[in-house]
Amino acid sequence: MPPPSGPNAYARAHRRRFVEELKEFVRFPSVSAQPAHAGDVRRCAEWLAAHLARVGLDNARVIRTPRHPIVYADWRHAPGRPTVLVYGHYDVQPPEPLAEWRTPPFEPTLRGEDLYGRGTSDDKGQLFTHVKALECLLRAGPGLPVNVRCLFEGEEEIGSPNLKAFIERNHRALSAGVVVLSDTRMLGPNRPAITYALRGGLSMELEVTGPPQDLHSGNFGGAIHNPAQVLCEVIAALHDARGRVRIPGFYDRVCRPDAAERDYMAHAGPTDRAILRAARAPAGWGEHGWTPYEQTTVRPALTVSGLGGGYQGVGGKSIIPARAFAKINIRLVPEQDPREVEALLRRHVSRLTPPTVRASLKTYFRNSPAVIDRSHPAMRAAFAALREGFGAEPVFVRSGGSIPVVSTFQESLGAPIVLMGFALPDDRIHAPNEKFHLPNFYKGITTSINFLNEVASRLSLSRGARTGPRVNHLRAEFAE
Amino acid sequence: MPPPSGPNAYARAHRRRFVEELKEFVRFPSVSAQPAHAGDVRRCAEWLAAHLARVGLDNARVIRTPRHPIVYADWRHAPGRPTVLVYGHYDVQPPEPLAEWRTPPFEPTLRGEDLYGRGTSDDKGQLFTHVKALECLLRAGPGLPVNVRCLFEGEEEIGSPNLKAFIERNHRALSAGVVVLSDTRMLGPNRPAITYALRGGLSMELEVTGPPQDLHSGNFGGAIHNPAQVLCEVIAALHDARGRVRIPGFYDRVCRPDAAERDYMAHAGPTDRAILRAARAPAGWGEHGWTPYEQTTVRPALTVSGLGGGYQGVGGKSIIPARAFAKINIRLVPEQDPREVEALLRRHVSRLTPPTVRASLKTYFRNSPAVIDRSHPAMRAAFAALREGFGAEPVFVRSGGSIPVVSTFQESLGAPIVLMGFALPDDRIHAPNEKFHLPNFYKGITTSINFLNEVASRLSLSRGARTGPRVNHLRAEFAE
Repeated sequence: MPPPSGPNAYARAHRRRFVEELKEFVRFPSVSAQPAHAGDVRRCAEWLAAHLARVGLDNARVIRTPRHPIVYADWRHAPGRPTVLVYGHYDVQPPEPLAEWRTPPFEPTLRGEDLYGRGTSDDKGQLFTHVKALECLLRAGPGLPVNVRCLFEGEEEIGSPNLKAFIERNHRALSAGVVVLSDTRMLGPNRPAITYALRGGLSMELEVTGPPQDLHSGNFGGAIHNPAQVLCEVIAALHDARGRVRIPGFYDRVCRPDAAERDYMAHAGPTDRAILRAARAPAGWGEHGWTPYEQTTVRPALTVSGLGGGYQGVGGKSIIPARAFAKINIRLVPEQDPREVEALLRRHVSRLTPPTVRASLKTYFRNSPAVIDRSHPAMRAAFAALREGFGAEPVFVRSGGSIPVVSTFQESLGAPIVLMGFALPDDRIHAPNEKFHLPNFYKGITTSINFLNEVASRLSLSRGARTGPRVNHLRAEFAE
Repeated sequence: MPPPSGPNAYARAHRRRFVEELKEFVRFPSVSAQPAHAGDVRRCAEWLAAHLARVGLDNARVIRTPRHPIVYADWRHAPGRPTVLVYGHYDVQPPEPLAEWRTPPFEPTLRGEDLYGRGTSDDKGQLFTHVKALECLLRAGPGLPVNVRCLFEGEEEIGSPNLKAFIERNHRALSAGVVVLSDTRMLGPNRPAITYALRGGLSMELEVTGPPQDLHSGNFGGAIHNPAQVLCEVIAALHDARGRVRIPGFYDRVCRPDAAERDYMAHAGPTDRAILRAARAPAGWGEHGWTPYEQTTVRPALTVSGLGGGYQGVGGKSIIPARAFAKINIRLVPEQDPREVEALLRRHVSRLTPPTVRASLKTYFRNSPAVIDRSHPAMRAAFAALREGFGAEPVFVRSGGSIPVVSTFQESLGAPIVLMGFALPDDRIHAPNEKFHLPNFYKGITTSINFLNEVASRLSLSRGARTGPRVNHLRAEFAE
């Protein structure tokens, strides 16, 4: 018998190499939030662009932006067929706290069927799933069944500050019938999911400052207002005793899901227990009257993601610190507007700040929530592809996370977005010991191959799905 | 004319060398709170003991304790005369935040008449003032007018955990008619002060922990209780809107000063403006109904001296942190008991902690408040010595700071304690850019010489002031 051929056989035959390549990709500490890693982000982009050329894509290149580059490549040899835009991000969250990693964050390590390292799951592993699917089709098939554009950014974890402008400027050259991206979660190892809603995000830092230097807490304690104390008092005033955010006006634009959706969520979504287990939390908390799944998807949330100020070393130090800060991360739901919520928070903080100290708020990023129409043919293509790839019926879920570019794609390209995630609830995304479950990598490659074939057969007659024939150059402002 | 002779002339002639020696002393980063500096603390102790031997004191030695050593030396060649115990501490506060120092904390630097560096004022410079006075008397006089014991510790900034036991074990060998120590402040460059009251101290750390790892704030924000938020809510519940500490029972044992003392404090103590100016604060804050001087001396205070948790780097990070902590520094007044207040805080925190997280409290140190009788002859000796040394009438002041050993001396030795400080309100004790005003160093040396002479003439007839003749060996438990 001749060896089996075709893209799926190729995928199976090259698994080991694919994992080695993914490890190479993970080794770049492409931490977009930390300026010290700017060079690593750039080197990672260069490696990725070179890799895209090597697997057989055209026009692979690194496109500069004011901060971290975009990686682009395409393959447009399927005239009359739809175009699929594959989005992903090669930047990663900061790895801190480093002491809590069992193995170094940028030294990817295999334990059992899991690959550990920062970005293995979010999003290098998931992005790479599609790259390897394209390789399988290009190397072991007659080419791709559709036209493809890859758009991989290096700023997702800092709110995609430059991608929106890039997409808006290049919306004709980037035109596509469907956008696919894998940066979301399944419900479990054999429970594939299609995400149809994302929360928006607003990332800010509150700083409270007092006198220009630390003061001796004996000589001045009791007579000078303490910025660390005031910071805590302001943060404490952001929630009420029932777990609701206490910023006036915060809930004004929040849409309530209808009964049918709550009902679907209750039976298709993760259970309370599954969410607590994934968090390794003994008990839940949050806004009364909503399940944990609802609290993290259809309801907004305000999280303090960092606190600092004064002495943090071993033992005690007898000071009133000169300043203290809190990093604040807000998740928004339709129809909340990030700029409006930012203004509400600024007003609330300024009302709460006593005249004895100064408070200032810095905004790191803001992005809008998004909901995707589940009835689009592209969603049915994804459904079929996942069912075949994982051997199980997928469900539609809402995610509590944010992918800033989704609302931009919706507004600028008018294309449906398919969020087909391969991460597991216990992958510890954003936390120490992040991992990627390699069976999902392999099944994801098959799923991605299936998806492109499904799109070819289901979307080819749809007019809007075709590539505009004349516009194929990225606008010079961002192109090299 | 022959050059002037005598201890004061000697002091003037050797000023430059004295400053160079003080710089040598300051160069040891003897940070008692930080285990990494344990070797530096020990080397500093050895340097100091060698220096005491060099200036002519007897029995100079480094005495081990379970943590940082004690330095001891004496001179007992004045039979029938009183014994003065000179106390000081050679350990220093942590220098952090390092970026805010104009010159490195352990590279003492002269700018104008001020010597900058960690410990220049608190307490190496002040301790050294007495050492140099002893040198002047031993080198340029007929010897000391009294018997002297020097007891210099390396754990003052961590609450003197071992000194109390050492003094109690050796209370006969350390017997003295008076204890003098300089670790307090004057009201201004020509406004000498004798401190007659100190606040006690209680240093603790509160930690709030949630799930065992950081969580993605999108996937879990709104459904899992955030330890950083809870920490802020607990801290916020420690004060009421009128600036009072809200721990139930906290004020139960607080003594109110009588009308006569409040009146004396109002005219002899620092003004509101002087305190705010020293803090470089635009406005005061604190418990209603008390002046800033009272708020920092006769009233207790609770200060958050450090906050930490989650992400503290550049930009934002989207997590629910696994834990957060606050360093808490409480200043106590008579008759508050540190152990009792500790228990009250523990009970209050445990009542405030929701079942969704865990809170734990660690105690770093506790020490009692102290009040000293202003009518003792030793106080009159100090008054006369300061008046002559600084050319101005001293005042009696309360300090908001704590010197743990003072209550121990009172209880174990039954000796009066003279707190004769040479620091200025703007010396930035415990803060970056700490300094010592060198004219105070020189005047302090003269004052210390005067003081020993005054003690010799005023206390020699007092029976309790004499050294017990037979007991002169330090107990073996701590002695080398």
